[in-house]
Amino acid sequence: MSSPTGSTALLTDQYELTMLASALRDGTALRPCTFEVFTRRLPDGRRYGVAGGTGRMLDAIENFRFGAPELEQLAATRVVDDATLEWLRGYQFQGQVDGYPEGELFFPGSPLLTVRGTFAEAVVLETLILSILNHDSAIAAAAARMVSAANGRRMIEMGSRRTHEESAVAAARIAYLAGFTATSNLEAGRRYGIPTAGTVAHAFTLLHDSERAAFESQIASLGTDTTLLVDTYDITRGIELAVEIAGTGLGAVRIDSGDVGVLARQARDQLDRLGATGTRIVVSGDLDEYAIASLRAEPVDGYGVGTALVTGSGAPTAEMVYKLVEVEGRPVAKRSSHKTSRGGRKAAVRRHKETGTAVEEVIFQIAPGAAEPVLGPHDRFLQIPLIRDGKRVDDVPTLEDDRQRLRHALVTLPWEGLKLSHGEPAIPTVFHEA
Amino acid sequence: MSSPTGSTALLTDQYELTMLASALRDGTALRPCTFEVFTRRLPDGRRYGVAGGTGRMLDAIENFRFGAPELEQLAATRVVDDATLEWLRGYQFQGQVDGYPEGELFFPGSPLLTVRGTFAEAVVLETLILSILNHDSAIAAAAARMVSAANGRRMIEMGSRRTHEESAVAAARIAYLAGFTATSNLEAGRRYGIPTAGTVAHAFTLLHDSERAAFESQIASLGTDTTLLVDTYDITRGIELAVEIAGTGLGAVRIDSGDVGVLARQARDQLDRLGATGTRIVVSGDLDEYAIASLRAEPVDGYGVGTALVTGSGAPTAEMVYKLVEVEGRPVAKRSSHKTSRGGRKAAVRRHKETGTAVEEVIFQIAPGAAEPVLGPHDRFLQIPLIRDGKRVDDVPTLEDDRQRLRHALVTLPWEGLKLSHGEPAIPTVFHEA
Repeated sequence: MSSPTGSTALLTDQYELTMLASALRDGTALRPCTFEVFTRRLPDGRRYGVAGGTGRMLDAIENFRFGAPELEQLAATRVVDDATLEWLRGYQFQGQVDGYPEGELFFPGSPLLTVRGTFAEAVVLETLILSILNHDSAIAAAAARMVSAANGRRMIEMGSRRTHEESAVAAARIAYLAGFTATSNLEAGRRYGIPTAGTVAHAFTLLHDSERAAFESQIASLGTDTTLLVDTYDITRGIELAVEIAGTGLGAVRIDSGDVGVLARQARDQLDRLGATGTRIVVSGDLDEYAIASLRAEPVDGYGVGTALVTGSGAPTAEMVYKLVEVEGRPVAKRSSHKTSRGGRKAAVRRHKETGTAVEEVIFQIAPGAAEPVLGPHDRFLQIPLIRDGKRVDDVPTLEDDRQRLRHALVTLPWEGLKLSHGEPAIPTVFHEA
Repeated sequence: MSSPTGSTALLTDQYELTMLASALRDGTALRPCTFEVFTRRLPDGRRYGVAGGTGRMLDAIENFRFGAPELEQLAATRVVDDATLEWLRGYQFQGQVDGYPEGELFFPGSPLLTVRGTFAEAVVLETLILSILNHDSAIAAAAARMVSAANGRRMIEMGSRRTHEESAVAAARIAYLAGFTATSNLEAGRRYGIPTAGTVAHAFTLLHDSERAAFESQIASLGTDTTLLVDTYDITRGIELAVEIAGTGLGAVRIDSGDVGVLARQARDQLDRLGATGTRIVVSGDLDEYAIASLRAEPVDGYGVGTALVTGSGAPTAEMVYKLVEVEGRPVAKRSSHKTSRGGRKAAVRRHKETGTAVEEVIFQIAPGAAEPVLGPHDRFLQIPLIRDGKRVDDVPTLEDDRQRLRHALVTLPWEGLKLSHGEPAIPTVFHEA
């Protein structure tokens, strides 16, 4: 169903190409420009954002090429004129991209991505870049909050069925970035090499003539280290049967319904009485970060998380925007409304105390004569080079690097910043005017 | 980035394949089964659901084939044994699928889709079917509420940037199904042949040395029937300039920020005073169904809708489930919890008054000896055949058919059912026990 050429070029809003056509015609298309991706606010009450999607975005920019199917579609629908079609035929981004790496925290106003190039080459990337960063960063923030709430317990992502089939693959990747142990999504395993997991659904028990027959079959096929789903009929009876069949070496039981906190404690008591003291308890069923946190005191060994993860747990988009901030070296900004926009290319530094605790996000203009902030020993620049002269830099961090980055970044937040309750951004954003 | 073969087979949760492996081994894999897709409830306060995604789902089922890349991945990660790999190599769905056509309304418990086949061939489709129907139906319901709120005014879908790049294409298709006029998404235009639209962003004005230069360029390139974006600097000055340059035949002005209701009225007054009485006013900027409804009394000619549409306006998934309801002709159901499940294959009839107003959704079991409801002259069965013996039926409705279906179905709701406020489902669901 996707483009037969693998091109991402039509994953674009029409107005980008009509703007391009007008600019090619009036001679402004080749003006050097800077576009910046940022968000005006975090979702309601969230204390931090998590940059996600950079790796997918770099792939997508590489594949942003206009082949025959794309050009034919544009010609047939007369979206742009022939001169523009000709220009698009040779399109390949040749500019510079810098940005926050995946797994980095961000705050209102953080310059998450800076795209420099001609107006023409940079404007056409707007929709694709925002789609990827907005989706993946929304999932990243929700996933990070869940991992934080789980406090080291095992997390399995299993939300594929509750979102678009391709969003599901991206969400599984981001869940892993944020510290989830594994995903149920097989394509995410193939595409990104992340661990996959999964055993059985209730259908498997219902297929069989009895729960006993189902458990015996699963043990025969997957071994005693598997996870038996014990809540199809009666949980107590299910656990009794599970240990009877698998023995006390049973890997885990999963409970997917009811008051999982109460049920987990009952299950732990029963398993221990039966001698299955090493059998783990996995719970699932409409868990979000709050439910996960509320189970901290219960004997739960792992969580299966679905809907809340893939829908961003109440914040399904990061609401980032892609704004033109500089034309031919001159800062530009929309001025008509309450939406504050700051012109000029910017960079960001995160300041930290000597203890390593983050203090503030400092945003400053990069311009001739603009004062650069003096960096303390624990301060650091937040953007890294991603594309130079159209080519992806060699040392873009890997998914594993980014996983460690997020884990470390969360530790640097002031303790209040990790609270799940509604609050202000964990650190303030300070703008240094040029 | 998608599978190089175009296969959808790995867009699947791992447990479906491990269940398959166990069932192949114990001999239950070929038992005839019926799976049913339904939802236990509508999203909080919604009065109806809208079936969406059936067309995409039929394509995806056709492409659910295991080629070399998929089998190599499963072999390398040892997800299943060799016998299962061999079975998957020959996989092609051979069963029967019936369902609610796209654009049909649904209610809690409605049997949206019925999949009949062997356990093996039907269980592996669970995740893919749910991903598509859950995403697309969530968008469909939000879109239908927005179209209803717009009361005949022109609607442009422009939310691509706020969701995953492939979800964006699906959302654009569904917005059109629900009655939107056009989409900004070019790939949706290519893939589904739906109308696309779009003119300029603020970046285009900022690129130029003056608003005048930007407007002149756009008019030269796109003609006077274009839509000029007048809120980059000062709206009153922008409108004055727009009419000065384009003349009173200017197509439209767009306002994207501020209190668009007040601004629209001011803009209308100003345009009329300038003689541009035919120039339309398009508003955009974080509109949802409530904002659209609140603008009913204002002189707005069209709406551009983004974030709220692609995120389902507060309900990003339809929360449908895929449940095994029948094995070898015998009803089956999970029994352990508060989640009521009703076993047995079911069908649905919508009853109507003589006036055509819908009265209730009747769900009844299809089983030997089960009583079929007597249909009144205005009642109708809700499922249609979609796949027979693995082949898509010839007369699956087109997107245009489904667009008309939804438009008509909404007219049949009791008037309260169209209210945007929180409420109960517009009609009750009545279960006829066998």
